[in-house]
Amino acid sequence: MFQTFTQSSEPDQGPARLAALRARLAEQHLDGVLVPRTDRWQGEYVAPCDERLAWLTGFTGSAGFAVILHDVAGIFVDGRYRLQVRDQTARDFTPVNWPETKLSDWLIEQLPEGGAIAYDPWLHTAAEIEDLTEKLSGKSIDLCPLPNQIDPLWTDRPARPDAPYFAHPVEFTGETHAAKRARLTADTPKGSWILTLPDSIAWLLNIRGADIPRNPVPQCTAILHADGTVDLFAPAAKVAGLSGHLGDQVTVQDPDAFEDALATLDGPVRIDPRSCPDAIARHLAEGEAEVIEADDPCILPKARKTEVEIAGAQAAHLRDGAAMVRFLAWLDAEAPSGQLTEIRVVEALEEFRRDTGLLRDISFETICGAGAHGAIVHYRVTEATDRPVTPGELLLIDSGGQYLDGTTDITRTVIVGAPKDVHRDRYTRVLRGMIAVSRARFARGVGGQHLDALARMPLWEAGLDFDHGTGHGVGSYLSVHEGPQGISRRSKVALEPGMILSNEPGYYREGAYGIRIENLIVTREAPAVPGGDDRPQLCFETLTHVPLDRRLIDRSQLTGAELRWIDAYHADTLKLIGPQVDGMARDWLVRACAPL
Amino acid sequence: MFQTFTQSSEPDQGPARLAALRARLAEQHLDGVLVPRTDRWQGEYVAPCDERLAWLTGFTGSAGFAVILHDVAGIFVDGRYRLQVRDQTARDFTPVNWPETKLSDWLIEQLPEGGAIAYDPWLHTAAEIEDLTEKLSGKSIDLCPLPNQIDPLWTDRPARPDAPYFAHPVEFTGETHAAKRARLTADTPKGSWILTLPDSIAWLLNIRGADIPRNPVPQCTAILHADGTVDLFAPAAKVAGLSGHLGDQVTVQDPDAFEDALATLDGPVRIDPRSCPDAIARHLAEGEAEVIEADDPCILPKARKTEVEIAGAQAAHLRDGAAMVRFLAWLDAEAPSGQLTEIRVVEALEEFRRDTGLLRDISFETICGAGAHGAIVHYRVTEATDRPVTPGELLLIDSGGQYLDGTTDITRTVIVGAPKDVHRDRYTRVLRGMIAVSRARFARGVGGQHLDALARMPLWEAGLDFDHGTGHGVGSYLSVHEGPQGISRRSKVALEPGMILSNEPGYYREGAYGIRIENLIVTREAPAVPGGDDRPQLCFETLTHVPLDRRLIDRSQLTGAELRWIDAYHADTLKLIGPQVDGMARDWLVRACAPL
Repeated sequence: MFQTFTQSSEPDQGPARLAALRARLAEQHLDGVLVPRTDRWQGEYVAPCDERLAWLTGFTGSAGFAVILHDVAGIFVDGRYRLQVRDQTARDFTPVNWPETKLSDWLIEQLPEGGAIAYDPWLHTAAEIEDLTEKLSGKSIDLCPLPNQIDPLWTDRPARPDAPYFAHPVEFTGETHAAKRARLTADTPKGSWILTLPDSIAWLLNIRGADIPRNPVPQCTAILHADGTVDLFAPAAKVAGLSGHLGDQVTVQDPDAFEDALATLDGPVRIDPRSCPDAIARHLAEGEAEVIEADDPCILPKARKTEVEIAGAQAAHLRDGAAMVRFLAWLDAEAPSGQLTEIRVVEALEEFRRDTGLLRDISFETICGAGAHGAIVHYRVTEATDRPVTPGELLLIDSGGQYLDGTTDITRTVIVGAPKDVHRDRYTRVLRGMIAVSRARFARGVGGQHLDALARMPLWEAGLDFDHGTGHGVGSYLSVHEGPQGISRRSKVALEPGMILSNEPGYYREGAYGIRIENLIVTREAPAVPGGDDRPQLCFETLTHVPLDRRLIDRSQLTGAELRWIDAYHADTLKLIGPQVDGMARDWLVRACAPL
Repeated sequence: MFQTFTQSSEPDQGPARLAALRARLAEQHLDGVLVPRTDRWQGEYVAPCDERLAWLTGFTGSAGFAVILHDVAGIFVDGRYRLQVRDQTARDFTPVNWPETKLSDWLIEQLPEGGAIAYDPWLHTAAEIEDLTEKLSGKSIDLCPLPNQIDPLWTDRPARPDAPYFAHPVEFTGETHAAKRARLTADTPKGSWILTLPDSIAWLLNIRGADIPRNPVPQCTAILHADGTVDLFAPAAKVAGLSGHLGDQVTVQDPDAFEDALATLDGPVRIDPRSCPDAIARHLAEGEAEVIEADDPCILPKARKTEVEIAGAQAAHLRDGAAMVRFLAWLDAEAPSGQLTEIRVVEALEEFRRDTGLLRDISFETICGAGAHGAIVHYRVTEATDRPVTPGELLLIDSGGQYLDGTTDITRTVIVGAPKDVHRDRYTRVLRGMIAVSRARFARGVGGQHLDALARMPLWEAGLDFDHGTGHGVGSYLSVHEGPQGISRRSKVALEPGMILSNEPGYYREGAYGIRIENLIVTREAPAVPGGDDRPQLCFETLTHVPLDRRLIDRSQLTGAELRWIDAYHADTLKLIGPQVDGMARDWLVRACAPL
């Protein structure tokens, strides 16, 4: 099993560690220290050796940070983690509602004029520190870039993972790394780009790694030069097998050589301040070279998948869809007994995915919420929270797989036994929002911010809504959350052909149930419409093909177009998935895909 | 008649005036001069004495500017005016596609290193000059703030309008100017705001004027002090009757005293760089006071109409709606003869509005486009372009009235005789977009950028679109185009209760026909939905009640909800407008409002 159900938090050890840290700060005449959850690669997952926040506080959420002062230890977490942080941390830590309370405002309130706060400049981005420095300057609070304050105290810190990197061949990417390097540098006569995002380096060099769970990224750093050559800073042992793949345009160097390499660069040196560690910006500021702030050049090209990547995504989704169909058929047979638990469901689903023989990892911890647990948007079942799947309740399952040819992410909500009217009404509204996005055909230039309302209209009409974006970008055998594309009120990037997105509206009734329906979709150039004008338009092609729970669809709420969409989707699903399943699963699929 | 049908352009006089201007520039060793269409108040309309661009070039469009150099005279116009500019200007002027070609890029290409360009700092905003200065600095091109270069040559320049300002009483505004001044300054202990937008001053002081056509604004300037007092810089003759209304907290001064008054201000002095003339920013920069860039404080409060203003808008729309119904009944009776022309239609409509006895002005030049003219989005009929209204063609009429209690703006597209299938298909798609916005219920925080797609979906589905925003803000007996609210991909401001907007999707087939359907709507707090969650949501209430052309509605395209909306809208219209009309108009209304 990839997924585990234990809670790795150690809240009881927090107070002693906190005391040791404070003693260390006092020795250095520091008023406090920032302890972020992120590592130097600014991703969603961190390696066990980088779980500094969890080590200190016990809090294991995927976002947040602590600020340790002498008389208060604030732990800043967002709405998802308000309850969890109280369970996981000792009372010595004071939860702070973030981002409602800004770090700068909190520090200004807590600290005296002229206070001094330590931070590890490798763990914060240049933009973050620039912003914070400016805000704290009014009270002359000093942000001190210092070596990490946790690491010397963490005597049993795990070793850094040592699994080797591996080539991700052109049969999956559709473009060699030589072509990518040439494309990115074609219009730039001189200078270089500092690449610090593992996804970007993985994409650019067609490599993958195993430095963190779930996302097959290599935690390394690189410099892309305007002549198309790359200096890759990665442990020799991890890249030992890659010399043939990387070729002579990519020079591997030890990570320790990175800072010296920065000093040798001619300008302009381009950094993306939203992801580049403050430490790098500082090193560069000390040197001679001109530094330019610019977007990471890999992000947008990576988001526009090649036809080969799209074909891979289609294949991965059919494989994953067949596993989901076997799982849902099994679930429908087993759940009515009332004997299943959330953990058993998660285990079964992972087994069905493993049965494909091609599962490299799950793409994130499966969210499996029965009844009221479904309303906790980021619920992750543990042995402590596990509960039975009970007839008459909704079950929400959000999961995905990492395959060499693609990353999947799917949510299905099913009823165990007979649904209530309110279940059917809410499910149908969520589904209609999902369909509205799926069917959208739109002008070039439109971004996710312009389409988000489509997913909410049927809920808004009934005085309902959901408190998360409608969709996020998805990588190609890379991170399941990938920018810059998205579908939310804040997603400003214009959608472009080849971008893969999730389409996942939901509805959550706290203490009662949760509903979310999620397909992945890929942005395509829209085919011409007979009689239409000659305008460049885009549309979405649905990648995910797994039946929707017909027991939860209120047909009377549907427009003709919505009904036709569902029937066509089910017909396609039967055609595409049918040949891959047999026996009970096939019978289930045929029934599930019948016209409404 | 308010509207005229002559073309006031004088293209033949352009070359001689251009030569005189160039001689003047040569005397001063200047390489060129900017000649904007705007006056110092940056509005859509200018007084005849401020029509400098038209005087010089012959071009009478509502936006654009000329740049006169010694060997080329560029005239920058947007997509609406590409054809018109060629008709109205002599060949000595070179049309430039704007904003595709940026002024800065064009100047850099045309001018030598170190060139000098004159501009009148009262006619350009601070932000505009700041931006241009920065872009031209790379080639050391100097922007020289100088007295206006046209005015000394324009010997028969008309006098500035002298109609007096008048009070707009609290029975129409719902809030006294004392209360407004107190509200705006409540949280600000010191300093002042420079107010340069006539709408803002009109709103703040509850006054109106007649300095330009169509928009009843007073072209004056004001300083709002943090203690709530105002210095109003306006000609004594225009405000002579207002001393009782303005009271002793508002001090009237001569416009000539304004520059001296700036020098006496203590800081902070707040200016809105997007509307404040560069001249004012320069004066302030020379003084001692701290200058802060901030939004004009009147804009957002003005956009949020009071309940009294909303009630006024409702009354104005019923009155205007009755005039529209009489007009449409007349049109339906007369048009099939083929004897009407566009001008006759415009005249008749204005007569029906005048018959209300309360029309103060039309709110803009009526757009009346028969057949292919309907596809010209900003078409204004003149004697030269007038054409018959022919059976079998669509007729688009976009018009509005200024009443003391409110400003109206309505577009109806009607068929003369029998429609073609394509007319019905396109009309129904446009109508469905209009209905989708009308019916929208949405979360607080949503802006027009998030709703614009709703109006386009039925067109996008068929490979169609329209090239203008879906809606603009509308003033309360003020400008018919008013910010900051709007419905377009660029409209970022969150919608708030009381904001009045137009809802006007369209479809245009060049050379064939145009369709636009426009109602005004007001943003309201949405009533609770039984069974809904307790979320603050907003909705739109429709102000405009005039029948939609049922001959153009393709019922088979409609969802049940759309059909119900149309029938309910027509039932409301009959109920609200019916008591105001009789005879032929009433018979027509009853037929027009029958359920589909």
